[in-house]
Order: sequence, then C-alpha cells, then structure tokens
Amino acid sequence: MNKLLIVLLLSVPFLVKAQSNTDSLFIRSVSDEILVNGKAYQWLRQLTKEVGGRLGGSPQFAKAVVWGTAKMKEIGADKVYLQECKVPHWVRGNNDKIAITSIGNKPKNKVLDALALGSSLGGNVQAEVIAVKNFDELELKKKEIKGKIVFYNYPFNPKNISTFQSYSDAGKYRWNGASRAAKYGAVGMIVRSMSISTDNNPHTGGMGYNDSFPKIPAAAIGLQDAEELWKLCAEQSVQIKMTTHGKFSPDTIAHNVVGEIIGSEMPKDIIMVGGHLDSWDVNEGAHDDGAGVVHTLEVLRVLKALNYRPKHTIRFVLFADEENSGSGAEKYAALAKANKETHVFALESDAGGFTPRGFSFNVPAAAWEKLNEWKKLLQPYGGDNFVVGGGGADTEPLSDNFKTPVAELNPDSQRYFDVHHARSDVFENVNRRELLLGAVNMAGLIYLVDKYGL
Amino acid sequence: MNKLLIVLLLSVPFLVKAQSNTDSLFIRSVSDEILVNGKAYQWLRQLTKEVGGRLGGSPQFAKAVVWGTAKMKEIGADKVYLQECKVPHWVRGNNDKIAITSIGNKPKNKVLDALALGSSLGGNVQAEVIAVKNFDELELKKKEIKGKIVFYNYPFNPKNISTFQSYSDAGKYRWNGASRAAKYGAVGMIVRSMSISTDNNPHTGGMGYNDSFPKIPAAAIGLQDAEELWKLCAEQSVQIKMTTHGKFSPDTIAHNVVGEIIGSEMPKDIIMVGGHLDSWDVNEGAHDDGAGVVHTLEVLRVLKALNYRPKHTIRFVLFADEENSGSGAEKYAALAKANKETHVFALESDAGGFTPRGFSFNVPAAAWEKLNEWKKLLQPYGGDNFVVGGGGADTEPLSDNFKTPVAELNPDSQRYFDVHHARSDVFENVNRRELLLGAVNMAGLIYLVDKYGL
Repeated sequence: MNKLLIVLLLSVPFLVKAQSNTDSLFIRSVSDEILVNGKAYQWLRQLTKEVGGRLGGSPQFAKAVVWGTAKMKEIGADKVYLQECKVPHWVRGNNDKIAITSIGNKPKNKVLDALALGSSLGGNVQAEVIAVKNFDELELKKKEIKGKIVFYNYPFNPKNISTFQSYSDAGKYRWNGASRAAKYGAVGMIVRSMSISTDNNPHTGGMGYNDSFPKIPAAAIGLQDAEELWKLCAEQSVQIKMTTHGKFSPDTIAHNVVGEIIGSEMPKDIIMVGGHLDSWDVNEGAHDDGAGVVHTLEVLRVLKALNYRPKHTIRFVLFADEENSGSGAEKYAALAKANKETHVFALESDAGGFTPRGFSFNVPAAAWEKLNEWKKLLQPYGGDNFVVGGGGADTEPLSDNFKTPVAELNPDSQRYFDVHHARSDVFENVNRRELLLGAVNMAGLIYLVDKYGL
Repeated sequence: MNKLLIVLLLSVPFLVKAQSNTDSLFIRSVSDEILVNGKAYQWLRQLTKEVGGRLGGSPQFAKAVVWGTAKMKEIGADKVYLQECKVPHWVRGNNDKIAITSIGNKPKNKVLDALALGSSLGGNVQAEVIAVKNFDELELKKKEIKGKIVFYNYPFNPKNISTFQSYSDAGKYRWNGASRAAKYGAVGMIVRSMSISTDNNPHTGGMGYNDSFPKIPAAAIGLQDAEELWKLCAEQSVQIKMTTHGKFSPDTIAHNVVGEIIGSEMPKDIIMVGGHLDSWDVNEGAHDDGAGVVHTLEVLRVLKALNYRPKHTIRFVLFADEENSGSGAEKYAALAKANKETHVFALESDAGGFTPRGFSFNVPAAAWEKLNEWKKLLQPYGGDNFVVGGGGADTEPLSDNFKTPVAELNPDSQRYFDVHHARSDVFENVNRRELLLGAVNMAGLIYLVDKYGL
C-alpha cells in the first residue's frame, strides 16, 4: 500500500468527522432556536382558534389561505404565491342523527353519537339494522340485506404497534362500505369509527360511492355506541332511524399556499416541504393537519432565523383539500410538470404533532447509504427511526409521476387515532414541546438533503 | 480446522436465530395479551379515582396499600405480603396562598396560584420580594435579603431534549432554596415551578431545611405567574403576603406491598420490578407514579395470563413514600440484606405512563453485550433505546449497597413535567395505549433477564 493511499485512508475518517461535527452543530442550533423561540404552537393556536375547521371548499378554507399567505410573508419567504385548483364543495348540513327506535318489540329512543361520512349524501331512513363484522360476513348475509341498514363493526386492530397499520386495514369499511351494502339493497350504512380511543367520539372521514348502486346515507358512530349496538343486534331485532344532510354545492376554487427560499447554487432544483391546510369540518384540525402546516412554517422560520442560505430552492407548501379530493397535490404536481421543475426531495408532515420517532422514505435504494449516515445526526432529537415507506397523500403525485424521492415525518402514533377526524382534534390536545420537536427533525433532514443531495 | 468445530461454528447462528425467534414470539405474545386484554388502564382509574392522592403517611396511602394488596391477590401472585416502614407524616393544611399586596406605592390584591413545597413548614409573612435568577445572583445580593421574600426564577432549560436533564438542573432551587435564602435573613421563599408547561399550574415537590437557619415558608408558583412577578420586580418594589400551613404530625407507619411469583429453578435469586404507591397530595398521582404501580401489576398479570414459569423469583413491589422520605425503598433493601437475598436485577417505572422509548441501565460493563443483543427484540415495541444511567430512587438502595444491576423505564419525557407534582397529574392525562406499551417493554425485559440472566 503506498503512502499517499495510507494518508488518504487515514484522513477520510477525520474529514467525515469534521463534516459531521459541522452538521451536528448546525442541527443543534436548529433545535435550540426552535425549542427556545419556536412559533409553531402560537401559530397553531391562531389557525385552530381564529380560523377553525377548514374543509376544502368552505369559507373557512379561504380564510386559512389568507392566514397562511400572511404568515409566509411575515416569516420572510423570498417569494409567496398561490396555486389555484378546483375542489369539490361538500357540505355536511346540521344535525347528523342516528337513533335506536326499537329493540325487539319495544319502542326506544336512544340517540347514538354519529357523524355522517365526508362526501356521503343525506338521507332519512328508518329500518332494521343488520350488523356484520366484515365484508365476508356481508357476503354471507347478502340475501338478508335488502331494506336494512348495514352496520360494519370491524375493529381497529389493537395488536399493531403502529396504529396506521390498523387504520389502513379498517379504512376500507368507511371508504367502500356504503356501496358494497347498497349493492344488496341496504338503505343506510353505519360504520364503527376507525379509532382505538377510550371515548365515544365518532370519527368522520372520506368515503366514495360506486355509481352503479344507490347512494345511501353513511355515518360513523363511536366505539362505545358500536359495542352496545353490536351486542343489541346479537340478541334482538334493532330498528334505527338515520338522518344525514350531506350534499354537494357546485365545485369551487381553493388554493395551495407556496413560499420559497431561493437556492443560492441550484435555484431550479427544488426541495419541497409541506402539510395540508384543509381539515375536517367537525373539529379544529389541530393534529390533522394543523401540525403539518405549522411544522412547515417553523422550518421556514428557523432557516431564516439562522440565516441559512440553501443551495437548492426550498419550497414550503400548504396544500389545499387533502381530505376531500387531493386536488391541491394534483395541481402542485401538474404545475411542476408544466414548468419542467426538478424536485430533489419532497417531505410531508401529516401524521400529527406528537413526539417524532423518525421518517418513512420512498427513495432510490442507493440513497439509503446517506440516510443511514444521517440517522446519528437526528438521534439526539428522537427522529432517527428511518423506515421504508411512502411519503403521504400530498407527496404521492410527485413520487408516482416523477419518481421524486419522498418522505413523511413519523411522530409517535399511539394517540393519533384518538382524535383523527373526531371533534377532539383541537388545539388543547397538542403539546407544545412535541410539536416543536417535529419541526426540529424536519428542519434537520431538509438541511442534510440540501447540503448533500439524496 | 477440524470438522466438528466447523459444524459447531456453522450451527451457532442457527441456534442463536432459533433462540431469538422463540424470544421474539414470546415477547409478541406478551404484547398481544397486554394490548388486547391489558388491565393497567382500568386499574389506574381505580387507583386515581377511588383512592386518589396518597401522600406517604396519609389515610389515603393506607387505603392504597389495601387496594394494592387486593390487586396482587386478585391477579394471582404466589405470595403477597407487606413490609412495614416508618414514614414522616407531613400535612399541607388548607389554602396555600401567595398574593401581591402592593406594587410600587400602590396597594394591590393579586392572588398567585401557589403550592407550598413538601416538608416545608407553615408561616404567614408579608414582605418585599427580591427576585433572583439563581444562587449566584443570591450571593451577589446577600446584603439586601434580610427581611425579604426571595423569589428564585431559575428557568427549566428548554434546550435539553430529555426534560429530566432540566429537572436535575433546576431541582436544587426547590430543594435547597429556602435555607440558602434564610441564611441571609429571608423570611419566605418562592420558587418558579420545575416545568415547561404552557399553563400556570404550580408544581410542588420535596424540599429540605438546613437546621442551622430559620425554617421559612416555601412555595412554588406557576410559570405565567413567575414571568409576571419577575417583570414586576424588575420595575418596582413588590410586596407579597405569603401564607402556608405545612406541619409534621408524628411519624407513622406505611407499607411496601410485595407480590411474588416463585422461581422454578432459582427461587432464591430475585428479579424485582416496581413503582411507588405514594403520590403528592395535590393530585391523583396518575403519571407519578400510578403508571409505575399499574405497570408493575400488568407485568405480573401478563406473566400469569401466559402461564409463564420464571426460573428466578420475580418480585413485584409497590414502594411506600418515595416522594417524602424514600423510606420504603430503604426498608426493602434493609430486609433484603437481613434475609441475605440475592437480587439479580431490579427494574423500576417512575417516569410516567408515556410511550416508552427505552431503558436506562446501571449494570456491569459486561452485561452490555447481552443488552445490545436484546435491543432488537424490544425494537418493535419502541423500548429499544438503551442508555447508561441509573435506576430510579426506589432501586437506588439496592444499586448503591449491593451493586445490584438496575434499570428504569424511559418513556417519552416531553409531557412529564407538564403534570409532575401539579394538580394536572390526573387519570385523564394518561393515554391507555401509551400506558400499556410501557408494560409490554418492561415485561419483555423481565422475561429476557429471567431467561438469560444479566
């Protein structure tokens, strides 16, 4: 082995160490700045309390766009603009109602706490309930379904440590359950909420109809009511009256809010970071996805506060209408294509403002070498559990269409489905420190991708 | 290399793999059993709502002993017994009160939310406040202190990711602040709460007097009041009236509650797992340390439910009086010595019922080889961040006196000091899933130590 090679080999670890020390110092300064001066929590209070629930297409969403734009400017983005997109305009109406009207032969008037599913159409039906655990049982009972209200009591699997696994598993009942029941003549559909909470809050969320079948009313009930209804149905004939009011107003206009710090070396190469500005109508959208919105703004703020000059253009995006149609994300990707933009990386926060555990990545295999190096830099801040997975719904069009490397922040998932799409997703259920730490880890990752590429 | 050796070497990985597969399957069954059938949450509701706050020496603590004993028997411990110990009996009295009576020359009557510190003696003083940031500033101002009320506004450092670091750092003001001020003639002491919460709850906790100086009243105020008082004192002379009522009744009797599963192979070698049964008087002691109590009971429950027959005797201990004197833990260690017991390992849960992140260990260096092997077995349940550190206060006497290897569960620490020793440490602030996952990881670790030693 010649001397030069030996010198080179010996010096590599020192170079790497020096570099990694600069990085760890920078990420420490990010963390200190956010944990001491972070604004994400105050901003979340404004978004949840002053704007409130902000379903895509609603007047509140338009208010949120004004708020987000002002915030981006106030923080000092080099450029702030809107991207217009067309969104559906679903309106819940007042007083979703499900009541048990008789048990066996006895009349009854027991109101269950219910929320119509998003995109479901209103209806007013009274019928016997047929309770099934899952689609297999629905198929077995298909001849009994005509004229009845189908109740899916599919449980959210408590054995999965990641609650998102249980959500993926149970979600099909909310999404497809109405039409699968209507196919056999059901007149209404009730679904057990996708949750593992200890309370009785119903959890709404998107659903879709299959146009081949009647569009029956569809609503979710809370876990305690679901347990009770399941028991009652096992014993006797249960009649229910179900009234919902969902309808579509004409499609309307919404906007993605975009802010940028222009890159100093590769201004045309973009690193995107974002969350969605819309929420469900029944709550304040604090975790879903107020947290992602203020994470995004906090990453912008900290980079400006530390006078960080990125090599790439870093783009901060508050997406329109993730919950109802995904049209904000589609529009973003379509514009990226039209403008021939190159996206180096896209990072999303849409899993709540809980203590960060890591990120899930959909990146080329070769990128994992870098990622594995970076883990130790995020380890002090708790975000070092790097797993293979997707970004989220708002980075999907970039990932699918352009193979953009994407990632999503993975906060601790234990409490997310207590509040997800329920009335309890309010500011008071977000902890300041947990929220800020999400932004620390996101900003750290964005810094590393900007510095070293991916 | 001879053939046998080759065969042996080749087979080792398979053996290890088979073994580790058995272990991972067992720990999975522990997790499934706890996440589906876990009772820790219901038990915590009973302890917090039916027994309530249970300061060592109080009637409520005696009630907690009865509850804990019944629970151990109900779960089916082979043996349940009490260990008697003598404990101090501090009584807060009613209506801790701190009010600003004048600012500058203007009379005022602004009540601050205050809690007397544990073990502080009551007093009724009215005096000017002298606000200091830390002990250095106290020393600089020592000539101005006579006849005044010293207010320590030492902040809980937000930069530490582990909030326990900030607690260790700030704790000396609560513990020693009164006597250090009394040394220079102070007539009262107020301390900024050891917290980083967004609310104004005061946080009590233990303090001690130096017998050389007058025992002045001492109380904590919440962060918002502390910020306001600090600002006022910077501008003008502020007078405060401070009334507390703490006093000691005669020492009394309390008990450690002990349950055992007798070891099948090494019944005289003991693995201990525990938490403390006492709490502060101002709250329900839900996280501190109701969580540790029900974690301990849940580990017992799951081992019985799975018909696990441990090699070592596993001893489940609910300690008396951690908050006030540590005499339960001292008594436990003294009895272990008197009975010539060998403790293989002692595990404690006293850092709340939040999502587990790992354990801190004080074990011989050689044990780390095993521990590093075990990490991957707990990784699916989130408890794989193994760090060097201590056990907690209740394993300290075992560790100090007998060099027993000890560990403590490390849950996520971001929210702990929001509720620690404050009125907000109530059942409603504990999440069922988070609580259960703590027990999953503890039971997994206990199983591994029982099977392989440490």
